[in-house]
Amino acid sequence: MKIGIVGGTGKIGEGMAMRLSRIYDVLVGSREIEKAQDTCESCLRYADDNGLSCTVRGLTNQEVVDGADVIILAIPYKHLDSTIAGLHGLEGKIVISPINPMEKHDFFEYIPPTEGSAALHLKKILPESTRLCVAFNNIAGNRWRDIDGELEYSVAVCGDDEESKLIVMDMIDRISLLKSYDAGPLTMSPVIEGLTALVNNIAKCNHMKDVGVRFV
Amino acid sequence: MKIGIVGGTGKIGEGMAMRLSRIYDVLVGSREIEKAQDTCESCLRYADDNGLSCTVRGLTNQEVVDGADVIILAIPYKHLDSTIAGLHGLEGKIVISPINPMEKHDFFEYIPPTEGSAALHLKKILPESTRLCVAFNNIAGNRWRDIDGELEYSVAVCGDDEESKLIVMDMIDRISLLKSYDAGPLTMSPVIEGLTALVNNIAKCNHMKDVGVRFV
Repeated sequence: MKIGIVGGTGKIGEGMAMRLSRIYDVLVGSREIEKAQDTCESCLRYADDNGLSCTVRGLTNQEVVDGADVIILAIPYKHLDSTIAGLHGLEGKIVISPINPMEKHDFFEYIPPTEGSAALHLKKILPESTRLCVAFNNIAGNRWRDIDGELEYSVAVCGDDEESKLIVMDMIDRISLLKSYDAGPLTMSPVIEGLTALVNNIAKCNHMKDVGVRFV
Repeated sequence: MKIGIVGGTGKIGEGMAMRLSRIYDVLVGSREIEKAQDTCESCLRYADDNGLSCTVRGLTNQEVVDGADVIILAIPYKHLDSTIAGLHGLEGKIVISPINPMEKHDFFEYIPPTEGSAALHLKKILPESTRLCVAFNNIAGNRWRDIDGELEYSVAVCGDDEESKLIVMDMIDRISLLKSYDAGPLTMSPVIEGLTALVNNIAKCNHMKDVGVRFV
C-alpha cells in the first residue's frame, strides 16, 4: 500500500513521512518538488544513521495523488480549498483529513466552516467517490517530529465508508504506540477537530507541552 | 465548603453524592424530597458498611441552592430551563454544569442549543453574578455509581471566573483519581460537551464500556 502525504514538508507532514516510511512506501508531496525532496533526504539520512529501512520519494502533490492509495492532507485549513482545486484524480482514493480549522487569540478557538467542520466542507468539494476519513487530528506536530519518541496516544477515526475506515485504523495501529478507535460517521468530525483546540488550551492553561488524548 | 447536587437522585447525581459526601458536606436535592432522602440513606448505609464518615442531607432543589456554596446541576439538558426557572438565589454561587445536550439515534449526536452549548445557554438564563463552570461532562454515570472503583480520568474545566475555576479544580482533585485541567474560557464548552458524544460513540463502535478521557 502506498501512502501519499500532500503537504508533506510541514512539521506534521515531515514527521508523518519519517515515521510512515519505515513501514510503507511513502510519497511526499509539496507545491515545490525541491522541498519534498529535501524532506525525503531527511528521512533517508535518519534511516541510514539508525540502520532502518525506509522507502520514500519526493514528488509534486499531483504525482502523490496519482501514485498513492491513501492520501493524507497534511495542510493548514486555509490552503484546503486551493489545494483541492489544484488536484485531479481523487476519485475512489482514501483521503485522510487531520485538518483543524482553528485560530489563536488569547486562547485557541475552533472555527469550523458553515458545513460544521473542515471534513464536512471537504466532503462537499471532493469527488463523490472519494473515501474520506478523519484521523490524526489531536497529535502535536512536535510529537510527530520527535521521531525517537513514541506516540502513546489514542486516535479517533470517523468516516462514512466502513472499509476505508478499517484500512486507516490498521495503518494507525502500526505507527509507534498509536491506538485507533472507530468514532462513528463523518458527522463526528466537529468534535474530533475541536478537540485539538481543547488540548491546545489545556497545554497553555496548565503549563504543559504538546498535550494529546487517550480514551480509557 | 458545602456542595449541593441539584437532581442528585439520578445515576450520576447519586454517584457524585456517594463520593463527595466522604469529603464534603453534601446537600442532595430533588424535585421530590423523599427521593433525595432515599439517596442519602444509600450514602449513609454504604459509609456505615465500609467504616467511612459521610455527611449528607436530602432536601428540595431550592433548599440545596439556599444552603450550598457550590451547586452541581446533575440534570438532563431537557430539564435545564424548567429547573432554573423554578429556583432563586443563585446570585454569586458557583454553579457547575456537567450537562451534555445529546441525542441517540444510530449514533450519539451532540445537539447544542443556538447559543453553542448547554453552558452558554445556561449563562444566559442564570443571574449575571452566578459563577458558572463546566466540569464532569465526560465521566459515565456507571463509573460514578461504581463507588468501589477508582475514577482514573482527566476532567476539563472551563469558565470565565478564574477564582471559581480554581475552587472547582481543587474539589475535582480530591475525588478518587480524577485530575482536573483548566481548559480556558466558557467558549470551550461546546468541545467539552461534544466530547461526551464522541466517547459514547467510541464505546459503541469499539465494543467498550463507559469510555472516558485522559489528557497526556
